[in-house]
Amino acid sequence: MKASQRLKQQIDFIVEIDKLKNVLRQTLLTDGSRRENDAEHSWHLAVMAMVLGEYAPEGTDICHAIKLVLVHDLVELYAGDTFAYDDKGHEDKDARERKAAERLFGLLPDDQGQLFRSLWEEYEKQDTKESQFALALDRLQPLLHNYHTNGGTWKKFDVPGHRVLHRAKSIAQASDVLGQFAEDLIRDSIKKGLLKE
Amino acid sequence: MKASQRLKQQIDFIVEIDKLKNVLRQTLLTDGSRRENDAEHSWHLAVMAMVLGEYAPEGTDICHAIKLVLVHDLVELYAGDTFAYDDKGHEDKDARERKAAERLFGLLPDDQGQLFRSLWEEYEKQDTKESQFALALDRLQPLLHNYHTNGGTWKKFDVPGHRVLHRAKSIAQASDVLGQFAEDLIRDSIKKGLLKE
Repeated sequence: MKASQRLKQQIDFIVEIDKLKNVLRQTLLTDGSRRENDAEHSWHLAVMAMVLGEYAPEGTDICHAIKLVLVHDLVELYAGDTFAYDDKGHEDKDARERKAAERLFGLLPDDQGQLFRSLWEEYEKQDTKESQFALALDRLQPLLHNYHTNGGTWKKFDVPGHRVLHRAKSIAQASDVLGQFAEDLIRDSIKKGLLKE
Repeated sequence: MKASQRLKQQIDFIVEIDKLKNVLRQTLLTDGSRRENDAEHSWHLAVMAMVLGEYAPEGTDICHAIKLVLVHDLVELYAGDTFAYDDKGHEDKDARERKAAERLFGLLPDDQGQLFRSLWEEYEKQDTKESQFALALDRLQPLLHNYHTNGGTWKKFDVPGHRVLHRAKSIAQASDVLGQFAEDLIRDSIKKGLLKE
């Protein structure tokens, strides 16, 4: 194999991230058949960004938001997925993910490693329109999945409605329309008994 | 639920495409544990576009290429995946996929349905730099997977090396560097007995 060192590093990274397809989230697919993995979840968010981009604040660079959702879960390759309502898991989530970022993005050529790391950090910092819109999609998608799986992880982990409503506030911060939609969906879920009060 | 008709259609589409996570390709994950699905495959190609974009022809809009790979397999939701070396399946592939496109993109508001359909058609037509780069990634990725799974689908379906080399020509058409890399990988696979002559 005669590939340059640069291309070799890039290909190694591409092969390594295949493992994200085996990192399971708690969320079920909408048909309830199995848990969703991080890779297909990231794809779903990226297409959601294309479909729902018109509800992002004016001037949001949708392409940049797409890149953010594509890479936002990459560090879970080594750090694992931390369930939204797992308070204990969140205690050391930052440290685990920072270490994972070091290791994973270190596989890439320096300039690209820095670029990927900066995308991931931008998503974590939540101080740009794009990262806020990306987070809104990440919060909206599991609502849809739980709604379509008879309560899904809400029921499984006995999550109270007020925590779901609180967590959905990030959606309203990025988009009035999507925030209202999410709130209506959560209240409808409570009314239908998919989610407790 | 008070969502506008437009938003309702968009959400219905987002829920519907979740099914792509259950459309299986022949390709195995690089750890050989199971077959890959279309949704995680599309994610993988999108990140590959970000990493390998520098090898696309000058002036290629990488963001546009990312959108193409994100939607290129959507029609398989109804049409199913057609294996690369399934000659019989390819006879009616176009008709099946055209019907599926009608049905799937028809879920979206008209303007967006047309936009998604035009992205899919651009990918199929292969007359833009972006669609050619997207196809190159789609052809490159399974080579990596077969290489890392001891021959994977090449061995399972007894695919001859000359057909794999022929199919990889699309990679060289979009990028000299990636084309050369693919050819080296295929020849190395033949040398190692992962792929027959």
